[in-house]
Amino acid sequence: MDQELILLQIAIILIAARLFAELATRLNVPAIIGELLAGVILGPSLLGWIEPNDVLKLLAELGIILLLFEVGLTTQLDKLIHSGSKAIIVALSGFILPFILGFFSSYYLFGLSLLASLFIGGTLTATSIGITVRVLSDLNKHNSIEGQIVLGAAVIDDLLGIFLLAVIYEFSRSGEVDFSNIITVVFYVSLFFLMAPLVAKMLSPAIKHLHRKTDIPGLIPVALVSMVLLFAYIAHISGAPDLLGGFVAGIALSRRFFLPMGAFIKADPNFTIDVHNHMKPIIQLFTPIFFVMVGLSLDLAAVDWSSLFIWIFSLTTLLIAVAGKMFGAFLIHEKNSTRIAIGMAMIPRGEVGLVFAEIGRASGILDATVYAGIILVIAYTTLTAPVWMKYFYHRQESAERKLTMRD
Amino acid sequence: MDQELILLQIAIILIAARLFAELATRLNVPAIIGELLAGVILGPSLLGWIEPNDVLKLLAELGIILLLFEVGLTTQLDKLIHSGSKAIIVALSGFILPFILGFFSSYYLFGLSLLASLFIGGTLTATSIGITVRVLSDLNKHNSIEGQIVLGAAVIDDLLGIFLLAVIYEFSRSGEVDFSNIITVVFYVSLFFLMAPLVAKMLSPAIKHLHRKTDIPGLIPVALVSMVLLFAYIAHISGAPDLLGGFVAGIALSRRFFLPMGAFIKADPNFTIDVHNHMKPIIQLFTPIFFVMVGLSLDLAAVDWSSLFIWIFSLTTLLIAVAGKMFGAFLIHEKNSTRIAIGMAMIPRGEVGLVFAEIGRASGILDATVYAGIILVIAYTTLTAPVWMKYFYHRQESAERKLTMRD
Repeated sequence: MDQELILLQIAIILIAARLFAELATRLNVPAIIGELLAGVILGPSLLGWIEPNDVLKLLAELGIILLLFEVGLTTQLDKLIHSGSKAIIVALSGFILPFILGFFSSYYLFGLSLLASLFIGGTLTATSIGITVRVLSDLNKHNSIEGQIVLGAAVIDDLLGIFLLAVIYEFSRSGEVDFSNIITVVFYVSLFFLMAPLVAKMLSPAIKHLHRKTDIPGLIPVALVSMVLLFAYIAHISGAPDLLGGFVAGIALSRRFFLPMGAFIKADPNFTIDVHNHMKPIIQLFTPIFFVMVGLSLDLAAVDWSSLFIWIFSLTTLLIAVAGKMFGAFLIHEKNSTRIAIGMAMIPRGEVGLVFAEIGRASGILDATVYAGIILVIAYTTLTAPVWMKYFYHRQESAERKLTMRD
Repeated sequence: MDQELILLQIAIILIAARLFAELATRLNVPAIIGELLAGVILGPSLLGWIEPNDVLKLLAELGIILLLFEVGLTTQLDKLIHSGSKAIIVALSGFILPFILGFFSSYYLFGLSLLASLFIGGTLTATSIGITVRVLSDLNKHNSIEGQIVLGAAVIDDLLGIFLLAVIYEFSRSGEVDFSNIITVVFYVSLFFLMAPLVAKMLSPAIKHLHRKTDIPGLIPVALVSMVLLFAYIAHISGAPDLLGGFVAGIALSRRFFLPMGAFIKADPNFTIDVHNHMKPIIQLFTPIFFVMVGLSLDLAAVDWSSLFIWIFSLTTLLIAVAGKMFGAFLIHEKNSTRIAIGMAMIPRGEVGLVFAEIGRASGILDATVYAGIILVIAYTTLTAPVWMKYFYHRQESAERKLTMRD
């Protein structure tokens, strides 16, 4: 294929992603929805202008690996500990319930394959930290009790979700669910999870030292991107999806990372900030390409919308996605209004869910209809939860105002 | 090909490029030589680890387009006017002589094809601004008379070189030298050269405005990279090599750009600095990939080193490359020592020369042996000119010191 045509495609993808993301935020909808929509419009569903090719796929892959790197870099592991047992309860229940319910309904109710059902369960597990943080801070609630619990829980279920992805990914590679294999996978992935941050942490003073010493500019972007790519490759050969490498590298370089033996590995918050500043433009450039590619992979025209299956499947799955997260909030000891707020804030699915769906599609486990159904569920949770939350807080505030006026 | 393997290849390319660039600067050799060497080592000449594939080629293309964008962005057109007629004489003679001599020797002496001879002549035209600036500032001579003349001349011959490339590129696309076609090409390319900066200049307030208004981060990298890519595509369809688009976009956004009608298009130096800061990490990430790829395309093992041709060809071409630049310095009215300093500083060829050679190779016009010969000439000028300059200034200073002591 013509190199120049690919350059044009990249430009169109970037411009469309930005245009629809801007439109989306004007309509109070998360930017990610705009980016997905850009892909749907450019892709086979509508215009059919762009067909995914090797180069675009790799750029999208780079985008998601780098996004997970940033998620890791900005994960505040210490927040987890402060938000305590309530966050853990919300996280665990909001992880286990959607997974089990999603799996069982897909497998027994809709008669999908074991692997497809596992992928669908997995898709529903992880709350989108990005969208939740954004909505909470828009409502100025990120420092409230519910804000702290939700952030803690979202971090935990992200971690769990990524770990689950590693296990299901291995099944998808071997093509079958082999529980005897699972021990080896869990062993290697755990080893990677434990060793990689240690290695990254030891590399970081070397990078910092070189950065200060070298005469050739651009050390941080080159060193960090190479490290992230190497980690992605190592994650892949230890049986995990490559983006896990990005996540682990980010975690290791994050400002508040501490290991059990963290005492003797000195962290430098200024270096983390330096890293983030140098990496930001690169991450911002590649990330939209991933979300547009998800939209591009979605062939809405190929879905049989007249069949009942797609409607019942996506509505059931949506119900599970909502109820599975709401339930956990009612297990903790808080006011009902706080419980509702927490449950709603946990509903939006995003990056990790899309990765589950995309890997399921790319490996041929999810067919076009199921893939479309699951993407609709993710988009719907992301679209509506922020609206509900705003409405809920708005009503609550006017109720409180009435109460104060009556006093 | 496996996506993960490509990720690994990119990591290896970036790490090797950085490693050899660091080694090179430790040995007082320009970093670019280290990056070429990294490619030679990883490629078919030595280890044969990496074979160029579509993805790597596109990343390299992005690298050179973005590098030319940066060259444009940091080109100080006003310096040209200040350095005046002497710079113009040095530039014109140093452009015309190597081109004509390179063409004639290739065509008549070595019996190469008309197109190949044109490419070889073109390769010898443009002084590497990057390397020359670097060496002059290392020697603290960039503000001397010779420094000013050399910088002005290097900018002019870069502009001329890129224009010449557009013309020769068109010949390479049609496969023949058709002088009736040249008028159309020159017309379109000139139109592009005139219109594109105007468009970019008009887009830049819009980008600036959006950058201030938007809630979604990352506007500058996304907008600028899309603009550069679109310009690259338009350059391509108007008959010029795509990297010209990057160069023109850079020129248009540069801090001291002025059009004939510049009066009513307000420039904002702060925005140029903002643009540069956001784009730097991206440029620094992609650029080394281009130079490594040049090294990778070089199959030194396929060259018949026992034949006289390669030796006589590269030595003759080197002689032309050196003499062609030295001659112009003696046309201006300056002290002999200043003339020698100017001539030497004009010798290093770099980016533009490598682009000529690479396009010639990729379009099948330069065979492996001629390509290897020409890359050797570029590498040699880049390697040795800085050493000569340091030696020359060192001798001159000790001569002056002796003179002062005798007084």
